[in-house]
Amino acid sequence: MDESRPAGSQDEIVTAAFVVIGDEILSGRTKDKNIGYLADYLTAIGIDLCEVRIVPDIAERIVDAVNDLRTRYTYVFTSGGIGPTHDDITADSIAQAFGVPIDHDPRAVAILKNFYPEGQLTEARLRMARIPEGAELIENSVSKAPGFRIGNVHVMAGIPAIMQAMLDAIAPTLRTGRKMLSHTVDVDLPESRIAAGLKAAQDAHGGVLIGSYPRSIDGRFSTQVVVRARDETLLRSAVAAVEAAVEAAGART
Amino acid sequence: MDESRPAGSQDEIVTAAFVVIGDEILSGRTKDKNIGYLADYLTAIGIDLCEVRIVPDIAERIVDAVNDLRTRYTYVFTSGGIGPTHDDITADSIAQAFGVPIDHDPRAVAILKNFYPEGQLTEARLRMARIPEGAELIENSVSKAPGFRIGNVHVMAGIPAIMQAMLDAIAPTLRTGRKMLSHTVDVDLPESRIAAGLKAAQDAHGGVLIGSYPRSIDGRFSTQVVVRARDETLLRSAVAAVEAAVEAAGART
Repeated sequence: MDESRPAGSQDEIVTAAFVVIGDEILSGRTKDKNIGYLADYLTAIGIDLCEVRIVPDIAERIVDAVNDLRTRYTYVFTSGGIGPTHDDITADSIAQAFGVPIDHDPRAVAILKNFYPEGQLTEARLRMARIPEGAELIENSVSKAPGFRIGNVHVMAGIPAIMQAMLDAIAPTLRTGRKMLSHTVDVDLPESRIAAGLKAAQDAHGGVLIGSYPRSIDGRFSTQVVVRARDETLLRSAVAAVEAAVEAAGART
Repeated sequence: MDESRPAGSQDEIVTAAFVVIGDEILSGRTKDKNIGYLADYLTAIGIDLCEVRIVPDIAERIVDAVNDLRTRYTYVFTSGGIGPTHDDITADSIAQAFGVPIDHDPRAVAILKNFYPEGQLTEARLRMARIPEGAELIENSVSKAPGFRIGNVHVMAGIPAIMQAMLDAIAPTLRTGRKMLSHTVDVDLPESRIAAGLKAAQDAHGGVLIGSYPRSIDGRFSTQVVVRARDETLLRSAVAAVEAAVEAAGART
């Protein structure tokens, strides 16, 4: 175990929510690439992503989402709205959500001063050093302007390369729980043919999540059955039950 | 104008929220393809997508999201969880959200009876005919099992091809507002170089949304400035102001 990572009980469930901030996602102009990335990342380190919200660049909506989610989940992550332009209102909105002042942070100003050539640290760029009082900075190895963490809320940039770099910087500080294990059974039948067997397997295995995901490829329906559990013995038992059900339905697995 | 579409005032703002239902999106196993599609679709017909939530296959969480959003927006759309397996709990959750009973709907049963060969309409498949009382069916031209509308909530399948077909079936019934017009100005400078000019242009143009979207391609930063307004004259005036600001900053547009 990484010694810099806070010890998490192997029985603890650690949860998270993600708030994607940006008009451009809601208008369709930009297609989000951060949700899938964060989902994979958190699952891999033993944190359950439980909810995602996409909200517009409106302070009240950001405040409401963050305040609603930060009391419900271990961690909240946000992406977007921390750049230098007038529509970047995330830092101010987070300060408002926590009821704390916001100003240019000397640590962030020093980072930007060190990065930009003499005389090029304009007022707009200094805007990226506005950090709510009491927050810790999150390193940005790509373009320097930092993200920040306040309470259990982690504020990251929206550009995928920068968000990913910030997430790498955050990960060692996160408490993580027992990882969700997963096994997929591919079935060459539509899910309605195996539904009864899957339900029986689910009913017989508390603590296991059996998901059935239909697919349509060139008009032909098949199914992926995903079995998830934190305990490996339980997982194997449920997978065996699913495979037996599928075989009974006459499908190859 | 399509005569079957309810007349919408050209000054009316019509809003929507989208609830994506499914553990598989939150675990990262499936990468969502419906949010971007719906965002583009609604923008094109004059409906503002104002919020998106991704929630797990847990009834309480679906109920909470739907009840929270259906009072705030003109329309709510959902995707996922209306198939034949035990983890498809959307229809029951929506009935619970509206406080109405749910049972096999004779219209939906008739559609399935007509589709499946004699003797193949199993109990699992009949599950797809469970529709909350008072709902209208939404046609599924791909695989027949219908979606449904109850109140202002439209319940669609999660498989993209089926969701898209259902959306085509729904669209003529939707009230639409005055379309948001949009013009993009490409700038070969990082956004911090044009931030002051953009802010001035925004301050001078109420009723216009000026968004600044940084991009990093091979480590080189550039910006797309998106100007949006419902009034064309206002849009043109704001675009001219943005172009002047960009030119003043020394960039090609």
